[in-house]
Amino acid sequence: MIAQELKGSTVLLAASGGLDSCTITHWMAEQGIDVIGYTADLGQPDEADMQDVKTRILACGARDVVVADLKPQIAAAGLQLVQSLARYEGGYWNTTAMARHVLIADMVAEMRRRKLTILGHGATGRGNDQVRFQLAAQMLEPHAEVYAPWRDSAFLSSFGGRTEMIDYCSRHGLPVKATHDAPYSTDSNILGLTHEAGELEALSTPASRVDPEMGVFAVDAPDVPGQLEIRFENGFPVELDGESLSRYEMLSRCNEVGGRHAIGIGRHVVENRFVGIKSRGVYEAPGLELLGTCYEFLLQLILDRRARRIFDQVSPYIAEQIYQGYWFDTATQACWRLIEHFTGLATGTIRVSLYKGSVSFDSAADVPHSLYSADTASMEDVGEFDHRDSEGFLRVLGVSARALNRSGQSGLDLG
Amino acid sequence: MIAQELKGSTVLLAASGGLDSCTITHWMAEQGIDVIGYTADLGQPDEADMQDVKTRILACGARDVVVADLKPQIAAAGLQLVQSLARYEGGYWNTTAMARHVLIADMVAEMRRRKLTILGHGATGRGNDQVRFQLAAQMLEPHAEVYAPWRDSAFLSSFGGRTEMIDYCSRHGLPVKATHDAPYSTDSNILGLTHEAGELEALSTPASRVDPEMGVFAVDAPDVPGQLEIRFENGFPVELDGESLSRYEMLSRCNEVGGRHAIGIGRHVVENRFVGIKSRGVYEAPGLELLGTCYEFLLQLILDRRARRIFDQVSPYIAEQIYQGYWFDTATQACWRLIEHFTGLATGTIRVSLYKGSVSFDSAADVPHSLYSADTASMEDVGEFDHRDSEGFLRVLGVSARALNRSGQSGLDLG
Amino acid sequence: MIAQELKGSTVLLAASGGLDSCTITHWMAEQGIDVIGYTADLGQPDEADMQDVKTRILACGARDVVVADLKPQIAAAGLQLVQSLARYEGGYWNTTAMARHVLIADMVAEMRRRKLTILGHGATGRGNDQVRFQLAAQMLEPHAEVYAPWRDSAFLSSFGGRTEMIDYCSRHGLPVKATHDAPYSTDSNILGLTHEAGELEALSTPASRVDPEMGVFAVDAPDVPGQLEIRFENGFPVELDGESLSRYEMLSRCNEVGGRHAIGIGRHVVENRFVGIKSRGVYEAPGLELLGTCYEFLLQLILDRRARRIFDQVSPYIAEQIYQGYWFDTATQACWRLIEHFTGLATGTIRVSLYKGSVSFDSAADVPHSLYSADTASMEDVGEFDHRDSEGFLRVLGVSARALNRSGQSGLDLG
Amino acid sequence: MIAQELKGSTVLLAASGGLDSCTITHWMAEQGIDVIGYTADLGQPDEADMQDVKTRILACGARDVVVADLKPQIAAAGLQLVQSLARYEGGYWNTTAMARHVLIADMVAEMRRRKLTILGHGATGRGNDQVRFQLAAQMLEPHAEVYAPWRDSAFLSSFGGRTEMIDYCSRHGLPVKATHDAPYSTDSNILGLTHEAGELEALSTPASRVDPEMGVFAVDAPDVPGQLEIRFENGFPVELDGESLSRYEMLSRCNEVGGRHAIGIGRHVVENRFVGIKSRGVYEAPGLELLGTCYEFLLQLILDRRARRIFDQVSPYIAEQIYQGYWFDTATQACWRLIEHFTGLATGTIRVSLYKGSVSFDSAADVPHSLYSADTASMEDVGEFDHRDSEGFLRVLGVSARALNRSGQSGLDLG
Repeated sequence: MIAQELKGSTVLLAASGGLDSCTITHWMAEQGIDVIGYTADLGQPDEADMQDVKTRILACGARDVVVADLKPQIAAAGLQLVQSLARYEGGYWNTTAMARHVLIADMVAEMRRRKLTILGHGATGRGNDQVRFQLAAQMLEPHAEVYAPWRDSAFLSSFGGRTEMIDYCSRHGLPVKATHDAPYSTDSNILGLTHEAGELEALSTPASRVDPEMGVFAVDAPDVPGQLEIRFENGFPVELDGESLSRYEMLSRCNEVGGRHAIGIGRHVVENRFVGIKSRGVYEAPGLELLGTCYEFLLQLILDRRARRIFDQVSPYIAEQIYQGYWFDTATQACWRLIEHFTGLATGTIRVSLYKGSVSFDSAADVPHSLYSADTASMEDVGEFDHRDSEGFLRVLGVSARALNRSGQSGLDLG
Repeated sequence: MIAQELKGSTVLLAASGGLDSCTITHWMAEQGIDVIGYTADLGQPDEADMQDVKTRILACGARDVVVADLKPQIAAAGLQLVQSLARYEGGYWNTTAMARHVLIADMVAEMRRRKLTILGHGATGRGNDQVRFQLAAQMLEPHAEVYAPWRDSAFLSSFGGRTEMIDYCSRHGLPVKATHDAPYSTDSNILGLTHEAGELEALSTPASRVDPEMGVFAVDAPDVPGQLEIRFENGFPVELDGESLSRYEMLSRCNEVGGRHAIGIGRHVVENRFVGIKSRGVYEAPGLELLGTCYEFLLQLILDRRARRIFDQVSPYIAEQIYQGYWFDTATQACWRLIEHFTGLATGTIRVSLYKGSVSFDSAADVPHSLYSADTASMEDVGEFDHRDSEGFLRVLGVSARALNRSGQSGLDLG
Repeated sequence: MIAQELKGSTVLLAASGGLDSCTITHWMAEQGIDVIGYTADLGQPDEADMQDVKTRILACGARDVVVADLKPQIAAAGLQLVQSLARYEGGYWNTTAMARHVLIADMVAEMRRRKLTILGHGATGRGNDQVRFQLAAQMLEPHAEVYAPWRDSAFLSSFGGRTEMIDYCSRHGLPVKATHDAPYSTDSNILGLTHEAGELEALSTPASRVDPEMGVFAVDAPDVPGQLEIRFENGFPVELDGESLSRYEMLSRCNEVGGRHAIGIGRHVVENRFVGIKSRGVYEAPGLELLGTCYEFLLQLILDRRARRIFDQVSPYIAEQIYQGYWFDTATQACWRLIEHFTGLATGTIRVSLYKGSVSFDSAADVPHSLYSADTASMEDVGEFDHRDSEGFLRVLGVSARALNRSGQSGLDLG
Repeated sequence: MIAQELKGSTVLLAASGGLDSCTITHWMAEQGIDVIGYTADLGQPDEADMQDVKTRILACGARDVVVADLKPQIAAAGLQLVQSLARYEGGYWNTTAMARHVLIADMVAEMRRRKLTILGHGATGRGNDQVRFQLAAQMLEPHAEVYAPWRDSAFLSSFGGRTEMIDYCSRHGLPVKATHDAPYSTDSNILGLTHEAGELEALSTPASRVDPEMGVFAVDAPDVPGQLEIRFENGFPVELDGESLSRYEMLSRCNEVGGRHAIGIGRHVVENRFVGIKSRGVYEAPGLELLGTCYEFLLQLILDRRARRIFDQVSPYIAEQIYQGYWFDTATQACWRLIEHFTGLATGTIRVSLYKGSVSFDSAADVPHSLYSADTASMEDVGEFDHRDSEGFLRVLGVSARALNRSGQSGLDLG
């Protein structure tokens, strides 16, 4: 899809109010496209207020600007990350990936209300976000078309990079805020921050090159451990140190206290992008890391080996689905049903200590579905489990062990 | 198998020289069993010297004592844990579990040399170790029988607990060292320490109850980060800060420096034992945690999404196999072949910082099989990847996205 | 648990009325145990009528006999096998395994009503059924104890085999029906038949040694193909050739027509029993095989690659869970939630031909959630999918392909 | 890549000598491209002789034609399908998919010899083959470029379909053989045939619409069963009814005898193409189906539950990799190492009966790594396995079963 085809059409354009989106808005308007800006409050810690964004996008030539409050939705989605422990390739909490789905769902709803069919966005032609926009939008609304100027030759030929955009904005008097020349780029919302590109692309740049925004690095964290108690009910964190909190407040508070102690700040991951190339990110997700670690402690008490095996298979699958833009597809919906069963068992209170980037277990209480029993676990002979039963148990196991040897599949000369 | 059946037979008895093994040795000898003690140097940091153990076991009535040096074997096995990132249920580095396999393989070889068929051990009837002894021994030698006094009524009726054993030893003048009444029990070797039972059984006891032996807790670690560079070749760490080290030295040194910075010290896990009950452990494994984290950083550069998917499926499977005593079976052997393929690609130098329990990435260099390319990853339009190609790419992906919607499998009203 | 401990206690004993159960009932009564027989109608095709069974068990010394009609439950459970395509190790439809769970659930309910705590059964000490009885009963009722005479020395010493039981019954005038000396043993219910043991244990015995009871072998099936149309709604087969049927009738009719055409008759599987030994079975399951094949054809139209991947992971897991007696555990419950999502999409009409043991696809219609579109699939350039988009698609894929080569991970000299 | 860019360049063009390849060859030559044809003997049952193909391609304007004999390679690759039981989505033996990899590897080798960098092919822009050409070629040789006229606007605008090609060929006097207007299209090689497109696209067309070429449909197969004995050594079928055969002969003979009895003839699958759309195929693969079924019977005797679990995870993964064009990537190479371990155990003789499309087990012999033992499997109390050991075994299992209930995770009111 190219600008030329869109002359006279209306596009709902995701616009954050930064240099890119101001340039794109004005350039699209110049091409005769009717631009309606869309900007959302996702609890991003580093963003200006929404009304200011609106004013600037309008000044760039948008006919209208939608300002959406998606704080409840993003908080709910964040807790789904906790419930499924969905970290992509074991490390990245999918903070941007999940936020895209939340954003796109609301944009598509807005498009339906306004009878629009074209969604525009400023994601580049090499990253993951363009994939998420395309897949999520078209799964939610098959008539949706997606326009991305960074894949449009006409736009690309005018804007090779940042310098041309700054020139363009100043030439047209666009209200771009004075921006410093960032050493890397950052995406942010209440769930976390992702830093990538720029200087971070060189593997010789340490993860500590990043300036943390949601907390501090471990070296700067307090010398005294903090303590914390989280109460989960049916998989949802409902109380922090005894205080009832909404989902959004819970995330905010966990970001705050976690960030203060360097939890989840500055995680370095070289990951496999959807398009098959590797990229490097440095991440901040203090709240998710803190809640996720507590949730993991809770699940350790509840899931037996068989339940855990299936959880451990589905969890990374969900993480991959979210990362790749498939949060709304059939596979994810089905997996979510499975996760909900575990969620329904996840009630309990977990107390942890926070210190210099680490969360350590202090105690657990009030876990009605716990399978842990100090009595049963005891190596002493108490309770229903008779040590001597193990003799029969092991003789039965021994039959298959010996069979492996006798069939030449195991043995001292092989093993 | 009970003592009564063994009168006149010779048993190769795993004996560490502690209270349990002294008691067992003497008691078995009293029953008319010919006991040959077996004790191994697995690099355990907290153990007395081996000759002293030998003297004491002999004094307890053993006819002979085998002292084995298994340091090279345990180091090799430890690096296999690193290469497969085989942490049981995501947390426990299998330090005791792996050591059991190393020990049993050597005991079985000794039994073959001495034409013995009965292996004795002092593991209880409720834990994992008894399973590992049975399975590993009988996979390596199907004629092997296993005798475990803690599953023998005759023994159990005499020794209800620690007090009876102390009385028994002092009554018979056995050379048991003065032992304090430990608040929990510990198993140790060069790979790590596992603490469990006793006070740790109560979930109200924090992980910090443990007295770390291989390092310090984060609060006691230096206030200044340490730095470290490890060179891997074909999956093996061969140089530490430029110095060539043997496998055993590498593990020792990583234990030392990792432990000093609290890496892998005090990890709490509530895990599912083979026999189906939950138990709680607090673990120390500074060297494995440090090497494993570096190895993970290295693999992130090398494995593409598909390779990673299969590695991530096989890794926990191997961890479970080791934990459950199946290191020598067909499934593990086959999985190991797969791991070796990845091992062959894992060459490179990783530089990290250590601080208060965390390992963070500083830089990577000389990784010949790296798929990471700062040029390709760049969001800027350089190299072979044309942003506009993505337009076609996404239109192709859009077909299936839309089909999901049109078939009623996804949509704004469903998703 | 042994008979001696049970003197004076009441046991609810699973009893089919055959030689074994008559012997066991009388012997238990002789030991002073109060026996209440329990027998269920699971639609077994080869069994006598239930009142006759009751009469005989009473004549053997039972104080009472419960006769349960479990036809609706077993039919419902059978359709769950279809919905999850849960064949153990790829071949066995779990017909006995599933029936055990249905039976045990009802026995436990009966025990609760009668305030009993001891369940008795006649399964041997080497098979899978004893495992299912133990696990399912104790998951449903933790106070339940399980008594199995075939694991009781007192019983075993009296009854070495079939001959001793026949002698015993004739000596005590028990109403055992004249039974021929079967060359193998068979378990049956509406879901299918399992034949094992006896002559079938020798691998030189062909699968055709079995006398099929639910149909015929392919050589004896009609020379003219049959045709069939099944309508599924939300995963349930509701119409056969346009006729509405209850779940039980559907299974019966599919057994009948499938069996006539040799569908699912005589499948040979050497499988891994729970206790770790291999056993060989020859199976009949015409209805499940027929319905399962049609269901698979339906799912092929509905599940995309991602949904299929997760279905294909969960399906064998459920099969293993059922086989091993874990139908009621947390893992299965969670997996079932996932399956239900797919079930909700599985609506459509499938027409097949049956001939000499094979089911082949004829046509599909009225599949609202189908992703198949003859237009989209066409190699001709029609519809939304532009052949030229593929050029960009493939150039994007090429980037990662080339990277593998350049990093030395693939290549003409390696591949 | 478009023709215009290729003027003056040399392209190695995969050409079968059919209507498409004659048209493409001539058209490319017309555009000023230097075409070298490449045609391979993959044992396709329905193809003309290779020299005739060469003559025709030359007559169409190719400067040279390479005729390759890939029969040994395709046979070896086919047996890898058997060894990994790699059927895509459970049904398709990957016959075309595997052949593409064999073909491309040889084309790339030829390109290297001739210092060429451009590979041409006639696959369409909607199917899987274009993906395989791109991925495999560029994994083997990163400098390779791929030209596909069916993705080139210039070509597409001239040739909307078959009629235009026939006109074009007759206008230019190209030596196209008189071809009937096929109701579907077929790809063939020694491994099997794939039929798709045309009339098969309509789901109302039964699978029996196809005219089988490698055998007959079941209705036309002999009324008397055939019997067959295959000897496997280290995973390779080496003897058929006692006669030693080369790999290629083995496949040919199994195709012949299997096809005669309708084995693997006419399998209908609606599958998920790489590009995300569903397509329908009807397949013939008598030799692979016959060998694969025998191999599966053999593995049933050898793999224990744990080995089987990992085999069953890796097998479909390999199938997907082959289907998608990733046979040469790191993941497949690693998986293959795992498969080789199982291959090394797969020695034995399997005897089966063939009848009307079904393969049934008759007997097995000389399986040195068999875990099956008629003695151990016996329900009678013989050998090392004492029925009474099961009492302890089950009491141990009961502990976790009861714990599930007590924690509220299972129960009569829940289950």
